Amino acid sequence: MRDFLPADVRKREYVIKIIKDVYESYGFEPLETPAVENIETLMGKYGDEGNQLIFKILKRGEKLQLSREARDESLEQEAPPHASRLTPPDTNLADLALRYDLTVPLARVVANRKNDLPKFFKRYQIQPVWRADRPARGRFREFYQCDVDAIGSRSMVVEAELILAVSEILKRLGFDNFTIRLNHREVLTDILDTAGVPAEKHGEALVAIDKLDKIGSEGVQNELEARGIAGDASNMLLDIFEQTQKIVEEGKDVNRTIVSNLINIVSSEVLTEIGQVLQYAANCPVQLDPSLARGLSYYTGAIMEINVPDLAGSLGGGGRYDGLIGMFGKEQIPACGFSLGLERILVVMDEREMFPPEIAGWAAADVMVTVWDDKSFGESLKLARQLRSAGLRATVYPEADNVAKQFKFASQIKVPFVCVLGENEIASGNVTLKNMNSGEQETIEVSQIAKKIALQIPTAK
Amino acid sequence: MRDFLPADVRKREYVIKIIKDVYESYGFEPLETPAVENIETLMGKYGDEGNQLIFKILKRGEKLQLSREARDESLEQEAPPHASRLTPPDTNLADLALRYDLTVPLARVVANRKNDLPKFFKRYQIQPVWRADRPARGRFREFYQCDVDAIGSRSMVVEAELILAVSEILKRLGFDNFTIRLNHREVLTDILDTAGVPAEKHGEALVAIDKLDKIGSEGVQNELEARGIAGDASNMLLDIFEQTQKIVEEGKDVNRTIVSNLINIVSSEVLTEIGQVLQYAANCPVQLDPSLARGLSYYTGAIMEINVPDLAGSLGGGGRYDGLIGMFGKEQIPACGFSLGLERILVVMDEREMFPPEIAGWAAADVMVTVWDDKSFGESLKLARQLRSAGLRATVYPEADNVAKQFKFASQIKVPFVCVLGENEIASGNVTLKNMNSGEQETIEVSQIAKKIALQIPTAK
Repeated sequence: MRDFLPADVRKREYVIKIIKDVYESYGFEPLETPAVENIETLMGKYGDEGNQLIFKILKRGEKLQLSREARDESLEQEAPPHASRLTPPDTNLADLALRYDLTVPLARVVANRKNDLPKFFKRYQIQPVWRADRPARGRFREFYQCDVDAIGSRSMVVEAELILAVSEILKRLGFDNFTIRLNHREVLTDILDTAGVPAEKHGEALVAIDKLDKIGSEGVQNELEARGIAGDASNMLLDIFEQTQKIVEEGKDVNRTIVSNLINIVSSEVLTEIGQVLQYAANCPVQLDPSLARGLSYYTGAIMEINVPDLAGSLGGGGRYDGLIGMFGKEQIPACGFSLGLERILVVMDEREMFPPEIAGWAAADVMVTVWDDKSFGESLKLARQLRSAGLRATVYPEADNVAKQFKFASQIKVPFVCVLGENEIASGNVTLKNMNSGEQETIEVSQIAKKIALQIPTAK
Repeated sequence: MRDFLPADVRKREYVIKIIKDVYESYGFEPLETPAVENIETLMGKYGDEGNQLIFKILKRGEKLQLSREARDESLEQEAPPHASRLTPPDTNLADLALRYDLTVPLARVVANRKNDLPKFFKRYQIQPVWRADRPARGRFREFYQCDVDAIGSRSMVVEAELILAVSEILKRLGFDNFTIRLNHREVLTDILDTAGVPAEKHGEALVAIDKLDKIGSEGVQNELEARGIAGDASNMLLDIFEQTQKIVEEGKDVNRTIVSNLINIVSSEVLTEIGQVLQYAANCPVQLDPSLARGLSYYTGAIMEINVPDLAGSLGGGGRYDGLIGMFGKEQIPACGFSLGLERILVVMDEREMFPPEIAGWAAADVMVTVWDDKSFGESLKLARQLRSAGLRATVYPEADNVAKQFKFASQIKVPFVCVLGENEIASGNVTLKNMNSGEQETIEVSQIAKKIALQIPTAK
């Protein structure tokens, strides 16, 4: 897990602000949930591997004591078979766990507080999540998700608005070559049925298909075989996906051609839904991809994923999950969401140098005020107050060091301006203003200084 | 731990923005540290009670297995004495822990990354911390701290600027009757010496004195006696504090009178430091209070606390801790900081109804666009896009329900305007605009609608 020094925080905040502004403009509202959930809320929601990757919090005080005593007694009574040591011991020692994603907490909130929420609840949530994964390039154990979800409607307007909002975010951040791949869980089911994959093997087939990007056709074929999916079915599946690939490469009427190829395989209801999403989000770079599977098992309808050419993996993804909220309450409430991966967006933006110069070269303050001697601190603090009133970020050098030292520090923190308040300046009611970029220096009346600097700092009031 | 629904988040963000803006204007920079720290970083920094209140994270996979096997073997080899079950079992099961405050992580960062930081590092940090405390009114297991610290200087300008910044925050939030109590650890030491409390009892005496606000003179006297501090010493201590209380009640030249009473007890260096803080922060409601103790043991110099009349306990506090960073590195680096308690500020602001109306009655969006039928979604989405381009937050009703239902929802989410896009409007290129507050309705050409609404929404571009 990482510390973020000021320059890192500035970049993160720049991206987060754009994400928030766009979501707000679509009428999404902020939700925050605690970092810590009851362990039962999380367990069993993310598959076996997910269960392993959840950070679990040790019970405290008496509760831990009781759990341990119960276990010790069972150890004393029966000679412990070696196997018992290998069973996961987590659940009797832990009662809480760290948030693993933002979708399950949302589902819990919607199920528990339905009466406090509007009928259609459009929410965004930008918070860290934690996974006990092996850290790797661009993969961290603490990372931010930027989720947006619309609760309560089965309308395809929801899918379309998510795509529209996410596209606008990426455009505002400066991305111009992203693709939003679109599929539908039922398209996958229908393709698997058509290929003759038995229903009970669909889950396993999806796990294999999900890797198509990473391991290619041959890899998927091997994996399908290893999972007991026959050669014929496997061939037919890969044929369908290769056809799509060709259509994409030809680049002509791609979505329309893919849809017409699916007419004999997929129900007209699902094709209508897909058609609506494509129509409503017509301005976005959406591309149908019948091979898109998405790992998570809770999706029930449309699934989506954003890709850029220079990043393996996706910048974000999402889909419809009409069954998840029902796991936490009596009522089945439809929902659809999208999650942007902040760290991946930052990695690409850093590599491509996409940050505007005022973010990339952010200074600690707009102006630094020097100090002449121990007795003149009051004057320097007063000048700083004046500068702040003009909307400037002003910092005072805290010690009566010699001026050279003070200037060295001003360079270190990259302030564009320094106000020198020496003996002469104080006596005459002036300030010497140094422009740290040009090196120019001029003497200005103290009452004029704030205005003078503010004119050159775009963020000042 | 709590979920924050949109109305709660708006209030929190309103307060946080003011805090950030003021800290930025003083040249403080943002730092973020991970929620999870190595358990050794936190243990032993907050006293015995603190150790108990730290949330500890269970080791994972093999590491947990090894810890448990080691323990099981020792259980099998020697019949376990009952006592061994009562020793704190946490440390062999847990390797990580949740952040308990923001000061210790800051000290770790400064010690480890000194070369990446400026010589004087002014940082603010607004993040949640976690304590396994019993929840109570205004006390939560997850809560936000808003910390500001200046690293690297022993100058009293640091203390003064912290007080100035914190005062400005409270004023901007609308607090007009707060007091910042100021003391110095050496004042306490000198008073204890003068009263004849032996040095090795100073810590215990401070714990008792810290409760003066809560349990009164008599309570403190009993507690001092219970801790073996003699009647004479205890009487003298309480005399000094009662004298101060009288000076405060008389309300004349309070700080000057208290200082002159301390001249024979406290060293002139410390009185000079206190005088400097009072002088540099002359515009702030600072009040000397020789009885202010502050719980944490790491303070070495000035200590401060903010109080308002209608809240038991403080809105925030801080002080100088020149010894803490040295615990994480070779070098002793001076530091001074202040922490504001976000939850307490919010409690008082809610009770006093201090939020501006646009925050207290925040709407999900500025305008809602209705939908006529399944075929007209495209038109509604297009109008929403237009409204957003004008800087408005626009939401589209997602289903082709009857108009009455759509208006009911608009009231539920409190939007001030609704754009009705019915059959006639679409045919004639118009929109019917309803002002939800006045009930007025008018028909406007579609190209004029965004401008018309934006004029009435102050946050629009």
